Amino acid sequence: MRIKLTIAYDGRPFLGWGTQPCGNTVQDHIETALEIVLKQPTRVQSAGRTDAGVHALGQIIHFDAPEGSSMNPFNYLPALNRKLPHTIRVMDCEEVDPEFHARFSSIEKTYQYRLSLAPILPPLDAGLTWHLPRLLDPVTLQEALALYLGEHDFRNLSIKRGNEFEGTDYRRTLTRCDFETIDDGYLLTFVGNGFLYKMVRMLTGTAVQAAQGRMRLDEIEDLLNDTNPETRKNAHSAPADGLTLAQVRY
Amino acid sequence: MRIKLTIAYDGRPFLGWGTQPCGNTVQDHIETALEIVLKQPTRVQSAGRTDAGVHALGQIIHFDAPEGSSMNPFNYLPALNRKLPHTIRVMDCEEVDPEFHARFSSIEKTYQYRLSLAPILPPLDAGLTWHLPRLLDPVTLQEALALYLGEHDFRNLSIKRGNEFEGTDYRRTLTRCDFETIDDGYLLTFVGNGFLYKMVRMLTGTAVQAAQGRMRLDEIEDLLNDTNPETRKNAHSAPADGLTLAQVRY
Repeated sequence: MRIKLTIAYDGRPFLGWGTQPCGNTVQDHIETALEIVLKQPTRVQSAGRTDAGVHALGQIIHFDAPEGSSMNPFNYLPALNRKLPHTIRVMDCEEVDPEFHARFSSIEKTYQYRLSLAPILPPLDAGLTWHLPRLLDPVTLQEALALYLGEHDFRNLSIKRGNEFEGTDYRRTLTRCDFETIDDGYLLTFVGNGFLYKMVRMLTGTAVQAAQGRMRLDEIEDLLNDTNPETRKNAHSAPADGLTLAQVRY
Repeated sequence: MRIKLTIAYDGRPFLGWGTQPCGNTVQDHIETALEIVLKQPTRVQSAGRTDAGVHALGQIIHFDAPEGSSMNPFNYLPALNRKLPHTIRVMDCEEVDPEFHARFSSIEKTYQYRLSLAPILPPLDAGLTWHLPRLLDPVTLQEALALYLGEHDFRNLSIKRGNEFEGTDYRRTLTRCDFETIDDGYLLTFVGNGFLYKMVRMLTGTAVQAAQGRMRLDEIEDLLNDTNPETRKNAHSAPADGLTLAQVRY
């Protein structure tokens, strides 16, 4: 029986999503809790890895319950939440078709990135937002984000993971890329059919460079159109703090 | 020169306000930062101690700058914030009369206590609210809180600190004690001329007992009127998580 879980987490206490030898990743905590509940080691597959410090409202994972398990799928939610740290919560649980795959079946992901312009960042926001107490032009920010819309080769606005091969496809399509004004700053929203490694942080960091007058919009266009490795030196990464994996659609 | 600082902190990473041999209290971090900035050990006085896990939006402290210090009072704010953990922030700074005392000059304090009724507590709220996914009657909650209003002997709704003496005055006056509905639950507000040790947590915990039908309102009246030590067994403490020292007035 294949089970799909919706997971939310505070990224601050953990070393990112993907399992590591030293433990303390979100995946490690979930697999440890699952092993207690299922009484056998069980690997989970996620919609995507998140870096250390990145948060999730709607990370999706799947796993296969062992043959002959009599556990009602609805019981995974309370059973796992009892074993998990309070900063990781299973928010939803359902049985899915055995063909469902958290990563390969996804058709769209939504990321949000929070910027705070507060003169002094309140303590409860530490690690949840990129603190930018310097001037930032919202019109330029909007213009920069609009350049990312549509299909582009994003190799200059992402980081190679090391598992790329000759012919790796760096083209991705963004269907939404804008921001709304929130209490202390801006909340950026990115919706697309897929995202390369660190891509949202580089889209954000580079747009902020332009909005702070440190870069021209045509330099961002070059990043999108020129695959020359020299060009990518103009790209900037935003810190992990403000980033949240908000939703995955199937 | 006497300096008054307004301090905000996330209580989760610290062992409370008051200095301890093992360090990692809010006072320890502030005194360590001050020692770097002033180049000599400096003790601070706070409006009141907060327990481990209790948060502050407007904790007030004072200290005396060393004789002959040429530091402009406004510069303490950025200088200290550079040295403090991001979960402790100096929000305001001003020079005050040498007679000002953070604790003894205060005339009114405001505490807030957050209750969450969410079926599953979102990870970012862990440690910031008392998670009460059980039924709670808001009418009874309001009636219970109203009983606390005015002047009472609160010895049964507080904890002895060990430094009480024969004739200690346990009478305090609450001028506001109510709640408002927020997204996922209730935000309780307590305003009074002073609060005994753990008093807000015991006022909250005991009112919640009544709102959950585990206690009658006349039993709360007994706690306020009967100084018999047996009576206090009915009092209940709420966890530190939801409590915030919001404001101190002078």
